[in-house]
Amino acid sequence: MKLATYKDGSRDGQLVVVSRDLSTAHYATGIANTLQQALDDWNFIAPQLQDLFVTLNHGKARHAFAFDPKMCAAPLPRAFQWADGSAYINHVELVRAARGAEVPASFYTDPLMYQGGSDDLLGPCDDVVVPSEAMGIDFEAEIAVVTGDVPMGATPEQALEGVRLLMLANDVSLRNLIPNELAKGFGFFQSKPATAFSPVAVTPDELGDAWVGGRVHLTLHSSWNGRKVGMCDAGPDMTFHFGQLIAHIAKTRRVRAGSIVGSGTVSNQGVEQNGRMEWPKGYSCIAEKRAIETLQDGAPKTEFMKFGDTIRIEMKGKDGQSIFGAIDQEIAPLAR
Amino acid sequence: MKLATYKDGSRDGQLVVVSRDLSTAHYATGIANTLQQALDDWNFIAPQLQDLFVTLNHGKARHAFAFDPKMCAAPLPRAFQWADGSAYINHVELVRAARGAEVPASFYTDPLMYQGGSDDLLGPCDDVVVPSEAMGIDFEAEIAVVTGDVPMGATPEQALEGVRLLMLANDVSLRNLIPNELAKGFGFFQSKPATAFSPVAVTPDELGDAWVGGRVHLTLHSSWNGRKVGMCDAGPDMTFHFGQLIAHIAKTRRVRAGSIVGSGTVSNQGVEQNGRMEWPKGYSCIAEKRAIETLQDGAPKTEFMKFGDTIRIEMKGKDGQSIFGAIDQEIAPLAR
Repeated sequence: MKLATYKDGSRDGQLVVVSRDLSTAHYATGIANTLQQALDDWNFIAPQLQDLFVTLNHGKARHAFAFDPKMCAAPLPRAFQWADGSAYINHVELVRAARGAEVPASFYTDPLMYQGGSDDLLGPCDDVVVPSEAMGIDFEAEIAVVTGDVPMGATPEQALEGVRLLMLANDVSLRNLIPNELAKGFGFFQSKPATAFSPVAVTPDELGDAWVGGRVHLTLHSSWNGRKVGMCDAGPDMTFHFGQLIAHIAKTRRVRAGSIVGSGTVSNQGVEQNGRMEWPKGYSCIAEKRAIETLQDGAPKTEFMKFGDTIRIEMKGKDGQSIFGAIDQEIAPLAR
Repeated sequence: MKLATYKDGSRDGQLVVVSRDLSTAHYATGIANTLQQALDDWNFIAPQLQDLFVTLNHGKARHAFAFDPKMCAAPLPRAFQWADGSAYINHVELVRAARGAEVPASFYTDPLMYQGGSDDLLGPCDDVVVPSEAMGIDFEAEIAVVTGDVPMGATPEQALEGVRLLMLANDVSLRNLIPNELAKGFGFFQSKPATAFSPVAVTPDELGDAWVGGRVHLTLHSSWNGRKVGMCDAGPDMTFHFGQLIAHIAKTRRVRAGSIVGSGTVSNQGVEQNGRMEWPKGYSCIAEKRAIETLQDGAPKTEFMKFGDTIRIEMKGKDGQSIFGAIDQEIAPLAR
């Protein structure tokens, strides 16, 4: 089934069930008011939401209305956890190669992950508000899952069973703040402003056989200012699957219902064409494009985003239909 | 006023108002069910809680009962943000000096801060469950604040006005996981298991004139296995006050109601006694004691915590009364 959260002026919004084709929606009133409430008691509430989803798909839901992604908050407008992995090691390899650094061997067995802020998550069409263009504004197109409760010490296989929903994410990064911040040794903080999520969160069964072994075998499309810059395969180059990422968190603590876990920038390996390395599938973040340019030509030439720029992130199923709806945001200055 | 959250089997517990002397409590039913609900609508709800607090202190609350810290969850059993500073630079200086490293000049003007997990916070008497003693189990005695909404770009003075409540925290750390984790460059993750908080969260006015300029000028007591090891002054050596810490978060994003912001390990400067540096006020984490031993005698000799060890953290007002109640935890292995 497909779930979304409509803005209603409250902090957690109103849970709605969305039809498979994203054309209609129905308030989940009487079942659960918010998505967190549904996740807190999933085994009891999910079947009721599923019944409404089926009715809605058949055009039989009595108070259905046209679904409008612009009305959406993030599926979880605030969450108790947002932990973002960097599961596509190819992305790490590219960025490191461009600055002449090696990838430590442990990176292939021990996932990179950072704890992100989750008190203020952005809806799919909300502006990305940044204090200054000089901070180096970049998008990062990712896949994310929402978990149920996962016990401490869970294996990757056990952790994978904790996946309740999938979404797309735009993990906005302020690239020019990162070097100083990471040099301090405590990880990202100011370099990671609020993250945006797709209009709709879907249960894994909505992906059909594209959801295999904790990976999504579909193409993630990124369009920057209307120009398609990324058509990356999310499946094959994901070094760590979502069960491994969740188990990484659960190594020393419990993971509680409503935790969001991200894949990191989706990235594909390059191919040699006429004696030169090319990345025909494009890129899911500008930093990676700049790394590619550096490897190809010795220096980056693509600049980061400017105020007024737009970014659209979407994934389509094998039937060509949008699965999650599109993240579609504009970069905006902070109004003083 | 003083607020706590009683365990009731639900994920967010039940909000209770606690008398100033911590002897009695009263459910806040009819005003707000949970602390997050109160924080979400603070200007409307806080005065009603305050009225109940006054009635309770006068012994006039009709359904008051004896307050029992063992019944408490963390004031926020799960939170939308837990951001922990390292505001006592003396702690950083000591730990770095012990390993022969300098403190970068920027550390005195730009706060160190990490984003912690907040989906599973521990009550004051909950066990600290750790998979293995070999992970190097340490306590960290800290002060933490809970914020209201703070806009992006807030100054430290504006941010300080966002402080709603204060608590004590035990930011448990797994010291032997830290070197490898920080070497990966993305900050703490597995090395920071669930954090515990004091039974009671208090409004700043409960601290009287000990709350000055965003700092708490009182002594933080830490007892390890019943032996007092820390009597650290929380005020004078706090390099960054809470307004500065909150403003650090708000630099590139909004800070939303119910965010918890920590001070980092409370730490005091050493004094020279008979030609040797001494730290007569003790320590608020074992890592600091080991750094002191290394500086004094060339090597650490105090070992980290073992299963069955206890840690008690408390702060008393100038009248000798416990302000927040005590964090009183035992270290326990993960049951398989």
